[in-house]
Amino acid sequence: MHSKIPFMNYFTPTFVADELKAGNNILRMAEKAKANGLLFRPHFKTHQSVEAGEWFRSEGVTAITVSSVEMAQRFAGAGWNDITIAFPHNPHESEAVAALADNINLNLLFDNPVQAAAAASAVRNTTGFFIKADTGYHRAGILPGDDATISCILDAAKESPLRFKGFLTHAGHTYRAKDPEQVLKIHLNSTQALAGMKARYLDAFPEIIASAGDTPSCSIANEFQDVDEIRPGNFVYYDLMQWMLGSCTFHRIAAAVICPVISVYPHRNEALILGGAVHLSKESLQIKGEETVFGLAVPFINGKWENAQGHDYLTSLSQEHGILQTNSPWAKNLKPGDCIAVIPVHSCLAADLLVAKNKFYIVR
Amino acid sequence: MHSKIPFMNYFTPTFVADELKAGNNILRMAEKAKANGLLFRPHFKTHQSVEAGEWFRSEGVTAITVSSVEMAQRFAGAGWNDITIAFPHNPHESEAVAALADNINLNLLFDNPVQAAAAASAVRNTTGFFIKADTGYHRAGILPGDDATISCILDAAKESPLRFKGFLTHAGHTYRAKDPEQVLKIHLNSTQALAGMKARYLDAFPEIIASAGDTPSCSIANEFQDVDEIRPGNFVYYDLMQWMLGSCTFHRIAAAVICPVISVYPHRNEALILGGAVHLSKESLQIKGEETVFGLAVPFINGKWENAQGHDYLTSLSQEHGILQTNSPWAKNLKPGDCIAVIPVHSCLAADLLVAKNKFYIVR
Repeated sequence: MHSKIPFMNYFTPTFVADELKAGNNILRMAEKAKANGLLFRPHFKTHQSVEAGEWFRSEGVTAITVSSVEMAQRFAGAGWNDITIAFPHNPHESEAVAALADNINLNLLFDNPVQAAAAASAVRNTTGFFIKADTGYHRAGILPGDDATISCILDAAKESPLRFKGFLTHAGHTYRAKDPEQVLKIHLNSTQALAGMKARYLDAFPEIIASAGDTPSCSIANEFQDVDEIRPGNFVYYDLMQWMLGSCTFHRIAAAVICPVISVYPHRNEALILGGAVHLSKESLQIKGEETVFGLAVPFINGKWENAQGHDYLTSLSQEHGILQTNSPWAKNLKPGDCIAVIPVHSCLAADLLVAKNKFYIVR
Repeated sequence: MHSKIPFMNYFTPTFVADELKAGNNILRMAEKAKANGLLFRPHFKTHQSVEAGEWFRSEGVTAITVSSVEMAQRFAGAGWNDITIAFPHNPHESEAVAALADNINLNLLFDNPVQAAAAASAVRNTTGFFIKADTGYHRAGILPGDDATISCILDAAKESPLRFKGFLTHAGHTYRAKDPEQVLKIHLNSTQALAGMKARYLDAFPEIIASAGDTPSCSIANEFQDVDEIRPGNFVYYDLMQWMLGSCTFHRIAAAVICPVISVYPHRNEALILGGAVHLSKESLQIKGEETVFGLAVPFINGKWENAQGHDYLTSLSQEHGILQTNSPWAKNLKPGDCIAVIPVHSCLAADLLVAKNKFYIVR
């Protein structure tokens, strides 16, 4: 049952993406978008990899979403020329976005007139913008009825090359949903609120669209009549959180972090792995009947991870240390030097930690 | 009250270290070590910066601790030639440590004979090793009475250039202590257990030492008669967690993450900052009477952070978004584009995220 170590990268924690599974996830989402007449603008903050980006091109994707100016610069450099930065505009980065908009079709996001004014005074070429709506997540965005702020944002943009593209939301509260039913309810409420905003401004701005699309909603829902564009990101890999929520089956999870086992402590049914907060992030998950968990360990054999053998969860992480609760016979039999796959709680954060450090490997 | 932005780096989240405060923290700890006749081998995993490492040299430090082979390589490259890797040896990195031991005085850590055997078969030059003891934290290490495993480790090392240097512990459970009293109790129990192990092997190995030294114990305790070496790391910067625990005053906190305010939501007493899990980590803290917090926001004026103005905590983090609870008049008055300082919950993890990305600035 012990894993072989086919690649040198696995000697220290390495983010491994399964291209076949990720490709299937992309294909399914692209088909769902097509079937619903939606523009598919996937969020690239999950994988942050130019190489992984190419999988999307194969499915006909030409427009993408990112969450920082730096990411927009990187993907523009890799030939992506239609990018929405789905984070409210940072006034300090106005010059950087103006330079980007000189070369690509760029969309910004505003939820405050100060952001719009800063961008308006910097951009030289036509630059799109969305108004961010808070449809229930209460992280960023204006409330659906806040026409006063919408008006101030539109005014700040008026005499500039900024062009109003529509309303955008992220119903991130689906991540905290208890079950798929609750995801669908949030999805419906959120997209209806967004559609209501669009409807009020459609006469004045006939080209505007409604853009939504968190991974749970896009994975679970089949009705998208209230929106024109979806922007899921996490679905390319999914993760432990999405599996538990019902957004995917285990088989669709397309990423794991490969970690070496360093020591075993049979007297407390635990093992030590090299795999801590700097590899997996401290994102945790409350699983019914378990402690707070930081990942699920599964066998890693011949470059592929297998099904869970039991409740082999990571129960504690510090900087480099991960404590694995050895529940299954497989886990109890682990030895120092074995390599295991950890299904991360949140693949976006694990990718952020490891892809930039070049601890990233694609299995085919 | 709005902050000026003296350095371009601050436009996106930047880890700022105050050299004067950090230097004082190092001086105090070096003096405490000297007064107690201890070898001071500070842990460099906190700052991970070659430049910050030079502050320690000024205080006479010549021996250091790191938590990964990669860190050992980096600091060896910067001229540090006496390094303990205080993470149990990863069998897959045996060749890498052997190459390091060709050039510097290197100490490894074992808590399983498999680790010792792997290192023994690779090293060509004298290489020290400590046996890791579990004195109550239950993360890594052998139990104090486990002479069978000690014997197996010593046997695995015997016919090799590995040299037994002593017993090492990390009483990381002090981080979960409720107050300084409890820290002192853990410190005493832990170091006494360690001293007991050393005493049993001193006849056979007259040169061995006892090495301990988590930041809470080293900051709060004044009695170290049971150990020969201390290895604190976090104390160079401290952070919100250490301040709350009583390891330091607010004034000694020597690091903050500077973040731009992006938006304000007066209807819910919250603001949005560019500063999320990829900048601060998702390390959280339970503060009495508060929600779980991810950092404390304070004014940042002329390149220095100020005292807390109220309960202005970060209450939620996602990948790039941080939600600031605006409690004080200062926080309520923030505008998009202002820059604030966030005292991180755990400076080690924030440094890990930002120093490697060169989002690191030293104020003097």
